[in-house]
Amino acid sequence: MAVVLLTDMDEAREARWRDVLARALPEETIVAGAGVDTAGLEPAAFDVAIAANPPAAALARFPALGFVQSLWAGVEQLVHNPALPPDAPLARLVDPNMARFMAEAVTAHVTSLHRDHPHYARAQAEERWAPAPAVYARDRTVGFLGTGELARACLRQLAGLDFPLLGWSRSRRDLDGVETFAGDEGLTAMLARTDILVNLMPLTAETRGMIDARLLGRLKPGAALVNVARGGHVVDADLLAALDEGQLGEAVLDVFDEEPLPAGHPFWRHPRVHVFPHVAAPTEPESAARIAAANIRAFRTGGAIAGLVDRARGY
Amino acid sequence: MAVVLLTDMDEAREARWRDVLARALPEETIVAGAGVDTAGLEPAAFDVAIAANPPAAALARFPALGFVQSLWAGVEQLVHNPALPPDAPLARLVDPNMARFMAEAVTAHVTSLHRDHPHYARAQAEERWAPAPAVYARDRTVGFLGTGELARACLRQLAGLDFPLLGWSRSRRDLDGVETFAGDEGLTAMLARTDILVNLMPLTAETRGMIDARLLGRLKPGAALVNVARGGHVVDADLLAALDEGQLGEAVLDVFDEEPLPAGHPFWRHPRVHVFPHVAAPTEPESAARIAAANIRAFRTGGAIAGLVDRARGY
Repeated sequence: MAVVLLTDMDEAREARWRDVLARALPEETIVAGAGVDTAGLEPAAFDVAIAANPPAAALARFPALGFVQSLWAGVEQLVHNPALPPDAPLARLVDPNMARFMAEAVTAHVTSLHRDHPHYARAQAEERWAPAPAVYARDRTVGFLGTGELARACLRQLAGLDFPLLGWSRSRRDLDGVETFAGDEGLTAMLARTDILVNLMPLTAETRGMIDARLLGRLKPGAALVNVARGGHVVDADLLAALDEGQLGEAVLDVFDEEPLPAGHPFWRHPRVHVFPHVAAPTEPESAARIAAANIRAFRTGGAIAGLVDRARGY
Repeated sequence: MAVVLLTDMDEAREARWRDVLARALPEETIVAGAGVDTAGLEPAAFDVAIAANPPAAALARFPALGFVQSLWAGVEQLVHNPALPPDAPLARLVDPNMARFMAEAVTAHVTSLHRDHPHYARAQAEERWAPAPAVYARDRTVGFLGTGELARACLRQLAGLDFPLLGWSRSRRDLDGVETFAGDEGLTAMLARTDILVNLMPLTAETRGMIDARLLGRLKPGAALVNVARGGHVVDADLLAALDEGQLGEAVLDVFDEEPLPAGHPFWRHPRVHVFPHVAAPTEPESAARIAAANIRAFRTGGAIAGLVDRARGY
C-alpha cells in the first residue's frame, strides 16, 4: 500500500513537501497528488493520505483510504471535506515545535502591548515625546480563549513573566497557575477582568464569528485583542467598530478570513490594527514530516495515533 | 539634624516628592530645596541630602552633609558634582521595583525584535503581506553590556524564554545561565555572537561614547541594539551610519543625549530607529522613598547603606 500527498499547493511546493516526507518515511511509497497519474499505481493502492486542505475532488479519487493525516494543526476545512472517508481516523498536526513558535509569538505580542509599543510608535510618527504611565505585569491580566496545546505552551511561558492568567474553554480544564472558566457565564466573568485577550480556539461551527460586538463589549474597556487562531473567529466590522468606540484599545491580527489580507481592507490602514501575515506558528516541514511519519507508522502497526480529531466536535 | 531634598525639578514636582519622602520618614524634618530659606533652619542643620541631579550651587550651600542619597539609579551627574562633600557616603537608588520594570521593558523589546515586529510594521505601512522566516529563541543570542542589578533582572527573565545569553562587564562576573566576558577581547568575542545587544552599563568616563562605529562594526551583521541605559553611551552619528550600511538592523532607543529628544533629530524619522521617551524603568516615588528612608535610618544608626557608590569607579 502507498501514501498520497494531497494539497492545495502549487506543484513545486507540493513536490518539496513530498521529498521531506519521503526522507522521514523511507519505507513508504509516497506520491504527490500531482504525480498520481504517472506513478503506475491504482488509486485503490493508496491507503493513507497526507492532507493539506485538498479539494474534495482530489480526495474523492482514493477509495481505499484508511487514515488521513493533516499537515496543519487547524483542520476546520478538512473535517468538513465531503470526500473525507467517514470511518478513517483523521489526525491533525500536534507539533511541539509549532507550540514553541506560538509561545514566542504570543509572548512578543503580549509584552509589547503591555509596554505600550503601539502608543509609542504612533507618538514617534508625530515626533511626540509622550511618556505613558507604566504598569507592572502583575497588574495586567491576560485572558485566553482556548486552553489547548498551543494555548498551554503560551500560558506556561507567560506565567514566568508575572502576568495574572485566565483561560476559557468549552469544557473547563484545570491548569496550574491559570484561573479557568467555561460556559457563557464563565466567559462574561473572564472578559470583565481581561486586559489582553488572546484567541487560540479551534475554528468550529460554534466558535465561528464568536469574537463579535457582544463579546468585545464584555471586555474591560480599552483592552487589547491578539488573534493568532483563525480569521473566521472574528466579525471584522464589529472589531473595527469596537476600536473606533475605544472599547477595544488595540488589535494584533495574525490571521484573516481571506489570506493574504486583500489590498484595501480597512485593517491595513487602521492605526490600532497591527497586521501580521499568518506568521505566529509556521509549520516546519522537517518537524511536521517526523510527526506525520510517526503517526503513519502507528497506523500501520496498530499503535496510538497522536492528534486524533473528534469529527463531531470538529477538532 | 534635618534632611534637605535637592533636585533639578520644578517646584511643584519637588514638593510632591518631598511629601512622599515625608510620609516614608515621619521621624525626620525634610525640607525641599525651594523651601530652605523659609524653613527656619540654618544650612548647617542639614546633615543628609536626598539628591536628584541638583545644580552645584544648591548642594554647596550645606556645609554639614554626612550622607547623600540619590533618587535615581544613574549617578553619572551627581558623582561629578563639584559641591559633593568629598567624605560623605553617596548612595544610588537600588530598587527591585525599578528592576521589575526594566526586566519587563527589555523582555518586550527583545521578544518583539526577535519576532520581527519592526519588519511587519513597515510592511503594513506599505500594505505588503511579507512573511519572513521565523527563528526559534534558542537560535537568537542576546548579549548584555553591563551585568549589574538591572541587567541581572533582565537576564533572569530572558533565561525562561530560551534565548542564549551573554554578558560583558568591566570585571568578569559569574552568572547562572549566562556566558560572561570582560576586557576588550571578551567584548569582541561577545559581539561577534550577538543578535540583539542590550546596553545596561553605568555611564562613566570609560563607557561614554563606547557604542561607536568600532563597537557596532564588531556585532553580527544585521544585529539589533536596545539602549535602555544612557544616551551618552551612544555616538549618534555612528549609530545612524551603521543602520544605513545594514551592519545594524534595528535600534530601540529609550534614552538620548538630550531629553526630550529634540524636534528634527534624525532618530525621530529613521525607519529603523524606535524611539521610546525614557520609559523603560521609571522611578516609583513610593518605592524610591521607602528605599531612601531605609538608607537614611541606616546612616543614622550605623547600619549598612545599600547602593554605596565607588566614586573612583563612578557608580
